[in-house]
Amino acid sequence: MAKPKKKPRPKAETPKGFRDYFGAEVTRRSEMLDRIGQVYHRYGFDALDSSAVETVEALGKFLPDVDRPNEGVFAWQEDSGEDKPGDWLALRYDLTAPLARVYAQHRNDLPTPYRRYAMGPVWRNEKPGPGRFRQFYQCDADTVGAPSVAADAEICAMLADCLEEVGIARGDYVVRVNNRKVLNGVLEVMGLEDGPERDAVLRTIDKFDKVGEAGVRELLGKGRLDASGAYIDGVGLNPAQAEPVIAFLTSKGADAGSTLENLRAAVGGSDLGLEGVAELSEIADLLGAQGYGPDRIEIDPSVVRGLGYYTGPVYEAELTFEILDEKGRKRQFGSVAGGGRYDDLVKRFTGQAVPATGVSIGVDRLLAALSAKGHVGGEAPGPVVVTVMDRARMADYQAMVGELRRAGIRAEVYLGNPKNFGNQLKYADKRGSPVAIIEGGDEYASGMVQIKDLILGAQIAENATLEEWKERPSQFEVPRADLVAKVREILDLHS
Amino acid sequence: MAKPKKKPRPKAETPKGFRDYFGAEVTRRSEMLDRIGQVYHRYGFDALDSSAVETVEALGKFLPDVDRPNEGVFAWQEDSGEDKPGDWLALRYDLTAPLARVYAQHRNDLPTPYRRYAMGPVWRNEKPGPGRFRQFYQCDADTVGAPSVAADAEICAMLADCLEEVGIARGDYVVRVNNRKVLNGVLEVMGLEDGPERDAVLRTIDKFDKVGEAGVRELLGKGRLDASGAYIDGVGLNPAQAEPVIAFLTSKGADAGSTLENLRAAVGGSDLGLEGVAELSEIADLLGAQGYGPDRIEIDPSVVRGLGYYTGPVYEAELTFEILDEKGRKRQFGSVAGGGRYDDLVKRFTGQAVPATGVSIGVDRLLAALSAKGHVGGEAPGPVVVTVMDRARMADYQAMVGELRRAGIRAEVYLGNPKNFGNQLKYADKRGSPVAIIEGGDEYASGMVQIKDLILGAQIAENATLEEWKERPSQFEVPRADLVAKVREILDLHS
Repeated sequence: MAKPKKKPRPKAETPKGFRDYFGAEVTRRSEMLDRIGQVYHRYGFDALDSSAVETVEALGKFLPDVDRPNEGVFAWQEDSGEDKPGDWLALRYDLTAPLARVYAQHRNDLPTPYRRYAMGPVWRNEKPGPGRFRQFYQCDADTVGAPSVAADAEICAMLADCLEEVGIARGDYVVRVNNRKVLNGVLEVMGLEDGPERDAVLRTIDKFDKVGEAGVRELLGKGRLDASGAYIDGVGLNPAQAEPVIAFLTSKGADAGSTLENLRAAVGGSDLGLEGVAELSEIADLLGAQGYGPDRIEIDPSVVRGLGYYTGPVYEAELTFEILDEKGRKRQFGSVAGGGRYDDLVKRFTGQAVPATGVSIGVDRLLAALSAKGHVGGEAPGPVVVTVMDRARMADYQAMVGELRRAGIRAEVYLGNPKNFGNQLKYADKRGSPVAIIEGGDEYASGMVQIKDLILGAQIAENATLEEWKERPSQFEVPRADLVAKVREILDLHS
Repeated sequence: MAKPKKKPRPKAETPKGFRDYFGAEVTRRSEMLDRIGQVYHRYGFDALDSSAVETVEALGKFLPDVDRPNEGVFAWQEDSGEDKPGDWLALRYDLTAPLARVYAQHRNDLPTPYRRYAMGPVWRNEKPGPGRFRQFYQCDADTVGAPSVAADAEICAMLADCLEEVGIARGDYVVRVNNRKVLNGVLEVMGLEDGPERDAVLRTIDKFDKVGEAGVRELLGKGRLDASGAYIDGVGLNPAQAEPVIAFLTSKGADAGSTLENLRAAVGGSDLGLEGVAELSEIADLLGAQGYGPDRIEIDPSVVRGLGYYTGPVYEAELTFEILDEKGRKRQFGSVAGGGRYDDLVKRFTGQAVPATGVSIGVDRLLAALSAKGHVGGEAPGPVVVTVMDRARMADYQAMVGELRRAGIRAEVYLGNPKNFGNQLKYADKRGSPVAIIEGGDEYASGMVQIKDLILGAQIAENATLEEWKERPSQFEVPRADLVAKVREILDLHS
């Protein structure tokens, strides 16, 4: 008889572009999100945890125009159980599209304005790359139903508060504010309607921080040689036509007043542009009155932000301290959060325009920034490990950890195979344990326990010249009744 | 020219079987999970946040045997971008299958034993029904790589601690422990190998708590008339053959000692069964030594637990207090958590058996239990609402909320259309605001603000005979400088 073919074993791997987070990676993130959530809450925002799965129809941006609408999202078709085809469902790709759906669905029960915050994973069906993951966290706050730019100003202030709350010092960040209406006013002055030329101008504006004023002039005109030596075709405007763009991009002055004056000049007679400048002026006044000076929040015309749906103020939080990039060069840390006003997202569902504005904090970027600044935080200490010298006395060891835990001390009995005592100490080392407890037959008979200070032990092992160890041994024998007090003493010593 | 066809508006709806969670529903859950996480942490468990998306191959239970492996999970096929077909991916349906994958993938870097806890949403592609959702939270703790039943005992103790930590009083819950080896020993004694008869016996055992001893006797024999009058065919055993099952199910004695003695008799000469009884005995000893008496954790042979993968001890937390069911009848609240030992899940990946044991807490069930016991908790107070009497003075209003927030008081300016003052108070009511602040032109000119105690106001409105209101007006005029102090005073009064 033929031997039955063995089924191959499954691969133990995350799907490409996904990863797992362990221990302190998880607790650090949740502590940071807790702090941000407290700021959002103090500002009157309510928590929302919307479904991770949405209909592709509700997500909108990715309406199915082919059999499988998987461009950008992870999508699948429901089995309707009937003759008709099932709905296409997808994982949310951000927290804003779901908010628009939630508000439209529940608007009769929700207060207006509706202030909500949300935190959670989102998914993008993109080609994975180094450091680019297809599941990541976002942390958003939005105000829906508030037409006043006071709502935008407030979110900028809240963003600054959040950054300070998680440990970014004043001076290490700046929230930069601009207004899409100003940019649209400039394009209006230039006579550029929707179309390929306008798109080319927008793409050029987006390159300002890379190529500078001279570079933008060239790209708006005939074109330019880039760093690699390739020639980039220009938009083909003549210098006079390009002037409003240049005036707009270079309008940042010494203070908000002069920036606004320059912007007023740049938008010329465009009503839309002037409306945008007036809104920026109001935002600057509101923030100034609350003490948020340009060291924290400033008007900056170079903030464009890619997303198409913004209709008014846009804002971005940048971290201004320097880090070393992968090639060892200094560069500014850069953007960690951004947002703006989007007055049309809810309208898709209801037909009525609903003004809304909000911010999204890039959770992983901000965590990386905190690490770069040395705020590791959330590093849980390893547990006190009670070793097992005699398997038959497991109940005694369990009683010890019970006492330690009731005193609020993280503790556990070694639950692997206890035969090799060295493995037990290796385990304690791998867990980052501060203390190990040893109680063999001799100690038990005399009512004592051995307490090993693993942190001091490691210091002694690292530094052979350290004479201190004779005075301060890293292992003590104490009466069993003093176990908790002695462990507490060692932990306090190292904290 | 024909009018262009208008695209229909998308429906603002969650997909069937999904829902959104608002405000206190979110914060209550996260507070409960925080508390449970603290207990897990104190027991030495480390956090793990694994990818929500797994390959269908790694999830295992749902290997694709048809074109679309969507039985039970939400699954889709990757676009590989090449000629060959892409992997099938799926949303995780629990937190245990991903743990087995994570441990197999990272076992060289993880400590052994590996104690981990995990909290997060899981997804089931099931027919949605009333109160049955296709996305819900789980909260698990598992020890991988610990062969000793001390690991099982510890998880039972931790489960009891978790329940007390979140607010379930001692006496209102019991953790019940059994062992699959005992049941398998009984089946061995009966000479039942894997097959339809054995499956029928297992299904019958699972009905014990519904039909009782007499019912099980009938179902193991010829069959029985059920409540609806339908005749249910029996397994067809004769009374002598059925006896070991009955002995097993009725083996619970007055204390652990007599239960274990009865079980020893029930498994007769089965080595496997006797091993199972010895393990239960060890668990009972370990827990007893730590003070977890049968009022908290008891050996109970009627705990079976459906899942096929358990190989040793199984456990379940039941809440024993009574609630009224949908028909107004009293019934016990029932199970909120369960788990057990599953020694074969990691083996799927590595070929080597890795002992593991763990528990999963049903987050929504436990939240419902806490509500039933009146532990609402986490009800965030609404924000203090500063009303807008004069749009031009927005900066002053923003300054007020700034001061309140810096004093730790949740506060916001009304950001809707301020024209209708009644709408502003309706908004404050909808938000559950304790206090509203009013500053019109007169107050401003005289350096005063009006503070409206909305909680007292509501009490007065509800109770027209309340004379107290004359002594304690619900609205005060105070100097602007006293704003924060007076609001704090009112909040303290109501807390």
